[in-house]
Amino acid sequence: MAQVSRRRPVRHLAGEVWSRRSDRLAVEEPLEIRIGGEPFSVTMRTPGEDFELVLGYLYGEGIVVAAGDVRALRYCLGTGPDGLNTYNVIDAALADGVPAPEPGLRRNVLTSSACGICGTTSIDTVLDRTRPALLPDGPVLPVETLRRLPDRLREHQAAFERTGGLHAAGLARVDADGAAELLCVREDVGRHNAVDKVVGWALGQDAVPAADTVLVVSGRASFELTQKAVQAGIGVLAAVSAPSTLAVELAERAGLTLAGFVRGETLNVYSHPHRVTGP
Amino acid sequence: MAQVSRRRPVRHLAGEVWSRRSDRLAVEEPLEIRIGGEPFSVTMRTPGEDFELVLGYLYGEGIVVAAGDVRALRYCLGTGPDGLNTYNVIDAALADGVPAPEPGLRRNVLTSSACGICGTTSIDTVLDRTRPALLPDGPVLPVETLRRLPDRLREHQAAFERTGGLHAAGLARVDADGAAELLCVREDVGRHNAVDKVVGWALGQDAVPAADTVLVVSGRASFELTQKAVQAGIGVLAAVSAPSTLAVELAERAGLTLAGFVRGETLNVYSHPHRVTGP
Repeated sequence: MAQVSRRRPVRHLAGEVWSRRSDRLAVEEPLEIRIGGEPFSVTMRTPGEDFELVLGYLYGEGIVVAAGDVRALRYCLGTGPDGLNTYNVIDAALADGVPAPEPGLRRNVLTSSACGICGTTSIDTVLDRTRPALLPDGPVLPVETLRRLPDRLREHQAAFERTGGLHAAGLARVDADGAAELLCVREDVGRHNAVDKVVGWALGQDAVPAADTVLVVSGRASFELTQKAVQAGIGVLAAVSAPSTLAVELAERAGLTLAGFVRGETLNVYSHPHRVTGP
Repeated sequence: MAQVSRRRPVRHLAGEVWSRRSDRLAVEEPLEIRIGGEPFSVTMRTPGEDFELVLGYLYGEGIVVAAGDVRALRYCLGTGPDGLNTYNVIDAALADGVPAPEPGLRRNVLTSSACGICGTTSIDTVLDRTRPALLPDGPVLPVETLRRLPDRLREHQAAFERTGGLHAAGLARVDADGAAELLCVREDVGRHNAVDKVVGWALGQDAVPAADTVLVVSGRASFELTQKAVQAGIGVLAAVSAPSTLAVELAERAGLTLAGFVRGETLNVYSHPHRVTGP
């Protein structure tokens, strides 16, 4: 409980040399917040200080204005598939006189969520939704092509150079010779928006599922970003920075090749390495 | 329209020398998505390729599965306070036979949003909610204290060193001598969660409004993060990376001192510089 990082096997490339390592990844798990027993919100978070998180979240939503507005916080006793308490559902009992939020404020509630919500539940939800889009194949690309993609993204990222404040996402098609063509680059203050714009572009081109493509993102690979790649039927997700545990687990189950820390001469491959060839 | 970055005056410190510059910031504006005329969601985004964003967003939500599921996308004709179209509200007309989302799926809808939703609307909403927490004063701190805070945050950020995948937020109290004590550091895969945990901690200490404190964050200063600082009555927000336009505008109106790119010997102050003294 309250595990902040977790070891995962990873294939690490430095220069021309592949090695197998065990790296620490940031843990990402869903937290369902209930108010008086009613589901209110689900947020993806790193376990730890969950009661503080719930209190701060409810404050940010304007539901409480002081700690005393919450009478009690407790973990729901449900269990995950392994029979253990998931510690991923918290019920907040509001103090007398503090009104419950209007139903319209509820958001992002997984309709299927049992008390034992956990990472597996979240992955199942994505896979249930996207099963038709999942493809067995996807692109095969030389590692040299993969490691050059972030630089090529950056070249297109004119606004980033000016502001330092924009995330970028790009979609590249890999041809039979293993060369990549950047089809579309989009920028946004929100990393999820940049990916939504790219997916929206691909939909407009009738190019979804985008099986022969690589999605390159300028930051980290969260569960949410990985989910968007899976939903769009993309074969390879390449992130400049770190993935989370749940992103890797989703990629593993969905058949997505997930590469992280793709920077200069080094990179890591976390799942389905068969799509990356060489050196 | 579709302005990706915008110039803002900034006080820049390099070593011991302050200068005034005009820097480009990433534009952040709300986008309200309507479906068949009904408000569905508000997301903070950088304008540009908005139709792609809406299409990709609706795809991610499982509301459409192909571009043809949307019959038409159009900007709502409402205007902002300056009488110009805000281009911040898009209505999606679904094709025949595509069911509208269930009402429970709606999220994050500003109940007060007129057709002319814009950055000002968002700021007004925050200020309406938080007016009682706003304080005229807040801490005064020497620039030497301010510029050392990110390093001190990093020292506490044990998990970051291991994973590279966690955001951190810390709350520091500034004493009368201008020294800072880090009261609380929290980490999370979600930057908003890290700040919520810190605010939740402060609420538990009965320390909100946290007028004599500085909130330090390891990444960028978005509107959402700045909103959380303002809501908690914090005096100074220091970000290691870039702020957005709307973050700076909110800080300006709310009386918050916003510092960005706080890295080693340089930093920028975007609003209310009177709280930063020296060198």
